[in-house]
Amino acid sequence: MAEHRRGANLPSLGGFNRTVVLDAIRRSPGGLSRVELAAGTGLSPQTVSNVTRFLIDAGMIVESGTVVSGRGKPRTILRLEARSRFAIGVHVDPAVVTYVLLDLAGSVVAESTTSTPSAEDPDQVVRTMAAAVDGLVGGAGVAPDSVLGVGIASPGPIDAAAGIVLDPPFLPRWRDVPLRDALGDATGYPVLLEKDVTAAAVGEVFLARETAARDFAFVYFGTGFGVGLVLDHEPVRGSGSNAGDAGHIMVDQGSLAGTPDGSGGRGEVGATVTPDRLVRIAAERGVPLGDGGGAGVGADGDVDLAAVDRAWDGLGAAVDAGDPLATAFAAEVGAVMGRAVVVIVNLLDVDRVVFGGPFWARIAAAALPAATAAIAGSPILVPKHPVTVVESPRGADVAAVGAACLVLDAALSPRASTMLIAH
Amino acid sequence: MAEHRRGANLPSLGGFNRTVVLDAIRRSPGGLSRVELAAGTGLSPQTVSNVTRFLIDAGMIVESGTVVSGRGKPRTILRLEARSRFAIGVHVDPAVVTYVLLDLAGSVVAESTTSTPSAEDPDQVVRTMAAAVDGLVGGAGVAPDSVLGVGIASPGPIDAAAGIVLDPPFLPRWRDVPLRDALGDATGYPVLLEKDVTAAAVGEVFLARETAARDFAFVYFGTGFGVGLVLDHEPVRGSGSNAGDAGHIMVDQGSLAGTPDGSGGRGEVGATVTPDRLVRIAAERGVPLGDGGGAGVGADGDVDLAAVDRAWDGLGAAVDAGDPLATAFAAEVGAVMGRAVVVIVNLLDVDRVVFGGPFWARIAAAALPAATAAIAGSPILVPKHPVTVVESPRGADVAAVGAACLVLDAALSPRASTMLIAH
Repeated sequence: MAEHRRGANLPSLGGFNRTVVLDAIRRSPGGLSRVELAAGTGLSPQTVSNVTRFLIDAGMIVESGTVVSGRGKPRTILRLEARSRFAIGVHVDPAVVTYVLLDLAGSVVAESTTSTPSAEDPDQVVRTMAAAVDGLVGGAGVAPDSVLGVGIASPGPIDAAAGIVLDPPFLPRWRDVPLRDALGDATGYPVLLEKDVTAAAVGEVFLARETAARDFAFVYFGTGFGVGLVLDHEPVRGSGSNAGDAGHIMVDQGSLAGTPDGSGGRGEVGATVTPDRLVRIAAERGVPLGDGGGAGVGADGDVDLAAVDRAWDGLGAAVDAGDPLATAFAAEVGAVMGRAVVVIVNLLDVDRVVFGGPFWARIAAAALPAATAAIAGSPILVPKHPVTVVESPRGADVAAVGAACLVLDAALSPRASTMLIAH
Repeated sequence: MAEHRRGANLPSLGGFNRTVVLDAIRRSPGGLSRVELAAGTGLSPQTVSNVTRFLIDAGMIVESGTVVSGRGKPRTILRLEARSRFAIGVHVDPAVVTYVLLDLAGSVVAESTTSTPSAEDPDQVVRTMAAAVDGLVGGAGVAPDSVLGVGIASPGPIDAAAGIVLDPPFLPRWRDVPLRDALGDATGYPVLLEKDVTAAAVGEVFLARETAARDFAFVYFGTGFGVGLVLDHEPVRGSGSNAGDAGHIMVDQGSLAGTPDGSGGRGEVGATVTPDRLVRIAAERGVPLGDGGGAGVGADGDVDLAAVDRAWDGLGAAVDAGDPLATAFAAEVGAVMGRAVVVIVNLLDVDRVVFGGPFWARIAAAALPAATAAIAGSPILVPKHPVTVVESPRGADVAAVGAACLVLDAALSPRASTMLIAH
C-alpha cells in the first residue's frame, strides 16, 4: 500500500495547543492574560485554563501581577519563566568552535570558544567538545536537568539523517565524523545537527517577531558564503538537509573581478568573496588591515585562517574608523553579494533579506548600505513589492545562537504536523 | 497584541480527516478497504466508518466489490467516483488560451482552445472566456453544480490577493486585468488565479504519487522560462505569490551564445532560450523548421508568436525524425537549461527535476537526455544524493491541467493548517 497522509485525533492536539500558548506568551515581553490568550489563539477559556495550569506546574510560565481592564475584575498576567529551561548551541567553524547557553527567552546566558580540534582522532574531538559543553553548564550554575539539549551548527555537507558531518571545505580532516550521536553519548543530552546556514535561519525565526519572518533569505558570510532560507515560517532543508548552497550563483564581480586572478567580469559569488581572497586583494590595494595585513595571505594555496581573521579585524576597524579605501572595499563586497541575492529574491519572491555571520558583522557598516542599494536598484529585480534588507541582530555568533534555537524550536514551537497521528 | 499562532480543537479536525481519507482513496487506483484506510491513516475504525459514510452520501466515493483477505470476512472496497465532481482549468498563454475540464481523478474529460483575446476591452475578454468555460461544461454534458470551480494559470506577475493579472511580458495589452473576480461574476463559479509555473507544479503534486513529489523543481518552458517549486509537498508561492522567476540565472550559453547577438559565453538563461531567439538561430544554422522556417522571425523587434510556434512544430518534427542538426540544437537548449537548474538544485537541495510546458514537449526527445547529463555531470553539483530528471507526463497542456488541479487541491487535499481554529 502506498504511503498515505496521517489523520488527526484528540490526543494528538494536546501537545500542539501547549506549544501554541507557550509561543504566544514568550513572544509577548509584557506577558498575557488568559483572556488575551483565548482571544489570540482561538482556544476556549477552559482549554487555556488547562494548558496554562500545565505550563505553570512545569515551571515554564509564572503568574506575575494583575492588570485592570475596563470594569471587569483584574486579570492575572502570565509571563515566561526564562530561566526554567536552557539550550546549548555549538557552532563548528573552520577556525573556532563557539558554545552558547541560551535560556527559554533566547538570551545568551554564557558563552565560550575553543580552537577547532583536528578530527584525526574523533574520540578526542568529542571529548574536547563535551568538556566545553559541561564547563559552560557548570560555570553558569545551571542544573543539567534543566538543559533541553544541544544543537550543533556545522558547515555542509552533512548527513542529517545519520547525524554525520561529511567533508566540509576548510575542514580537511573532518570527514564522516558521527558528531551527533557521539556528543550525545558523551554529554547525555539530546543532540541535533544542522547545516550552519539553516541553523542561523532557524534562530532568526525563533527569536524574531513572527510577522517579520515569514519568507526571507539569511545571507550567511563566514569562511564560506551560504544562504539559509525560510518560506512560510518554515526553514528550507531540502531532501538531503543541505539546502543553502548559493555560492555557485554567477554575478558581475565589479572591481573584485580579475584582481589578482586574471581576467574576470563574471564569476561565482562564492569564489569571489572568500575571505582569504578578499584579504589578498585588499592588501594589494593598500587597504589598511591593521597588524593582520600581509600575514598568511600568500598565494601558496594553504590558507592561514587565523591570519585571515586578524586581517579582517583590521579591515573592520578601518571601516568603522571611516577609512575611505576600506569603506569602498567593504561596499564592493556587499554589492557583489547583493547582486547574487537578487537571483534568489526573484526565484523565491521573498520580501526580506537578512545579512549576518562572523565575516559580515565586521564590515556591515559599509557593506549593508551597498548590498541594500544593489538589491533595490537592480535592473533585473522582479518583485513589485519592497524588499527589506537588514542586518541580523544576532551578531557574529548567529550560527551558535541559531544552533541552540534548533533545540528550543523543536521543543517549543507549534508545528501543525505534530497533530497528525504518529506511525 | 501581536499576531499569534492559532490553536486547534475537535470540530476543526473533521474536515481534515475527510480530506485525508479521500486523498488515500483517490491515490489508490485499485481502491481501499476500511481496514486498509484505518491502517494507512492512523484513524480509528469508528472515525473511518463515519468519514466514509459522509463521502458515500456526498457521492464522492462508492462501494465497489469485495476482496477476501486471509480468514476474515470479505472486505468492501471503496473507490473514487471520478465523475462526481469536476474542475475547470484555464491557461492564458500569449498566443492561445487553453481550457480543460478535469474529473475528480484528474483525467481530462474535455478540452478546447481559443486565440488569446486582446485586453483592450476587459469586458470582451471576460465574455469570451466565460463562453468558452460554459461551452466546455455544456458540451461535456456535465451538470454545472458538479463543477467545483475554475483555476486560471497566468503568466506573471500577478497580484494574487486581488486576483489581478499585472503586466506579463508578451501580453502588452494585459495590464491590471481583474480576471479572477470578473470571470467569477460572469460564470458563477469560484475562481482561483495562480502564476502558470506554480499551477504546473501544483498539478504535478496533485496527480503524482505522493512519494514522488516531496521536493522538486518544475522547469516550465513556454513563451518564457520559469521554475515552479515544491518543497516538503507544498508549492512555493513567495510573499507576493510570484515565485518562480528563474530567467535571470546566469549560465554558460555554450553554442547558443554570441549567435547571432554578438559576443557571449555567459548570459541569462531566460534571454538565452526565448523561443523566438532560438528559432532565429536555428534558421540561420539551417536546422529544418518545416514550413515555419524563416516566417515571422525577423529582427525587427516585433515577435510573431504564431510563426514561432509553427517553426517550433517543424523543429519538433525534425527532432522526432532524428535529423542530426535539429537533434543537436534541441540538445543544446536542454543542456543550457540543465546548467541553470544546477544552481537551483544546489540552493534548495531538491532531488527531482521535472521538465514540461508547450515548448518543452516538442523537443523533449533530444532535450531531456541533454538536460539530464548537464545536471548529473555538472562540476558544481553539490548534493551527494542522485537527482532524478524526468519529463512531466502532463504534456503541453500541463499549465491548464495544473490550473484545474488548483481547484481540486484546494477542495480535496489534506492541509494540516486547516485544523487550526479560524480567526
